[in-house]
Amino acid sequence: MGGSLAGALRNKCRTVIGVTRRTETIETALARGLIDRGTTDLPSGVCHSDVVILATPVRVILELLAEIGPYLPEGCLLMDLGSTKAQIVAAMARLPAHVQPLGGHPMCGREVSGIAEADPTLYVGHPFILTPLPRTSQDALAQGRALAEAVGARPLVIASERHDQLVATISHLPYLLACGLVATVQSKAADDPLVWEIAASGFRDTSRLAASNTTMMLDILLTNRQAILAALEACEAQLRHLAHLLEGGAEEDLRTALHLIRECRRDLPASPRPQV
Amino acid sequence: MGGSLAGALRNKCRTVIGVTRRTETIETALARGLIDRGTTDLPSGVCHSDVVILATPVRVILELLAEIGPYLPEGCLLMDLGSTKAQIVAAMARLPAHVQPLGGHPMCGREVSGIAEADPTLYVGHPFILTPLPRTSQDALAQGRALAEAVGARPLVIASERHDQLVATISHLPYLLACGLVATVQSKAADDPLVWEIAASGFRDTSRLAASNTTMMLDILLTNRQAILAALEACEAQLRHLAHLLEGGAEEDLRTALHLIRECRRDLPASPRPQV
Repeated sequence: MGGSLAGALRNKCRTVIGVTRRTETIETALARGLIDRGTTDLPSGVCHSDVVILATPVRVILELLAEIGPYLPEGCLLMDLGSTKAQIVAAMARLPAHVQPLGGHPMCGREVSGIAEADPTLYVGHPFILTPLPRTSQDALAQGRALAEAVGARPLVIASERHDQLVATISHLPYLLACGLVATVQSKAADDPLVWEIAASGFRDTSRLAASNTTMMLDILLTNRQAILAALEACEAQLRHLAHLLEGGAEEDLRTALHLIRECRRDLPASPRPQV
Repeated sequence: MGGSLAGALRNKCRTVIGVTRRTETIETALARGLIDRGTTDLPSGVCHSDVVILATPVRVILELLAEIGPYLPEGCLLMDLGSTKAQIVAAMARLPAHVQPLGGHPMCGREVSGIAEADPTLYVGHPFILTPLPRTSQDALAQGRALAEAVGARPLVIASERHDQLVATISHLPYLLACGLVATVQSKAADDPLVWEIAASGFRDTSRLAASNTTMMLDILLTNRQAILAALEACEAQLRHLAHLLEGGAEEDLRTALHLIRECRRDLPASPRPQV
């Protein structure tokens, strides 16, 4: 996500500096033209920046927020790309007063990660959620909006708690369902390994998210626990309702339920870019 | 599925005859070069055929199997493309002795259907399951294998009950999970309609199967009820296990579970053809 954003901003900013843990990442980012220069030293990387964007798993963002404040120059806009926002915004509230914090979450994740997968067009056409704090200035928010638009995304300003409720259902629940599906097939395969041989595109699509980066997803689950457990419970109730209709042979009720679900899914506007 | 198979067989058979309910379907199939000729009259369409393939929803196949026998010529190979096999194979066992029955299920469904979506390359690289009956001759089975290979698929011979167990987990369970997911988001949208605005590719992929044809899926659910309910129960147990780890904050156990699931999903060989 960070490499893609750097690449998307490259020719729209004076200088794009990549701050990474490993020098190999900087070398790849430079070779791919995603950054102007890079460093593994956080203080020197951010000390003259107008905008700093944290693009790590959520709990690393929380650690960085606890230490980065003193290194940032006066009036610096500090954003992040974390997939949960309430805990991050709470940590941002504790930043020194000279920093302008703004939560961010572009809605265009992929199950691949790493600098080698960076794609500067990743954000085009997708919503880019911004979660301002009470202390965030109108200028800082406007700068965040402009940044989202500069990478081709649609800025969408909402409160961090509302964000976390929404993504629990639309984003984290699908991940858990994909994991539950893969675990079920894995268990079935212990009885009959042929089950993997006949996996078709339906299984592949439904299970794709289970291949997401574990560290990233673990941080998301642990920092949005209650909302995710509630979303899973709501989904289990829906599944039990369908199972109840099927078990009881309530054919017309089942047809109606499946038909309404189908219409709803078909009404979803097409993705800005098809996934391959 | 039927139109795609007709198109795939078109230049590999003497004559491909489409038998449909509606004349418009025949016109489209002729215009698209999928068939040599067509009719809405079942008896005259099949009475001189070497091979007849039923490509309708499962319960329409069951109805057709009850009536088609007398119209078929001596030694005719009667196949189907139904997504569940035990009830179809049981109905095939009651066909007149002069017919050679063979259950079939190509593992390459899509959520779109209808003659306008027909694609003669649909079967290339996918498994084509064949479920012979005790009465099916070796010659008839060999003919079924040759047919699967002629359309580019990989024939896979298994018993109908085993087929139904496997597809309940790998194919019908993903459909139900997709439906449960869409129903959950629909319910969430009643509180906060913004949830649809931020649906990204993860939701789209995980929910894609919910757009499947309702009549087709209802027939599948009702003719493979017990295996599907068992698969759903197994998946609910897996989901409850993950929820339990999350709820209890058992971080290392949760990481291990998600990591094993991820490795498993990543080990799945790539699809013969990416879905767009």
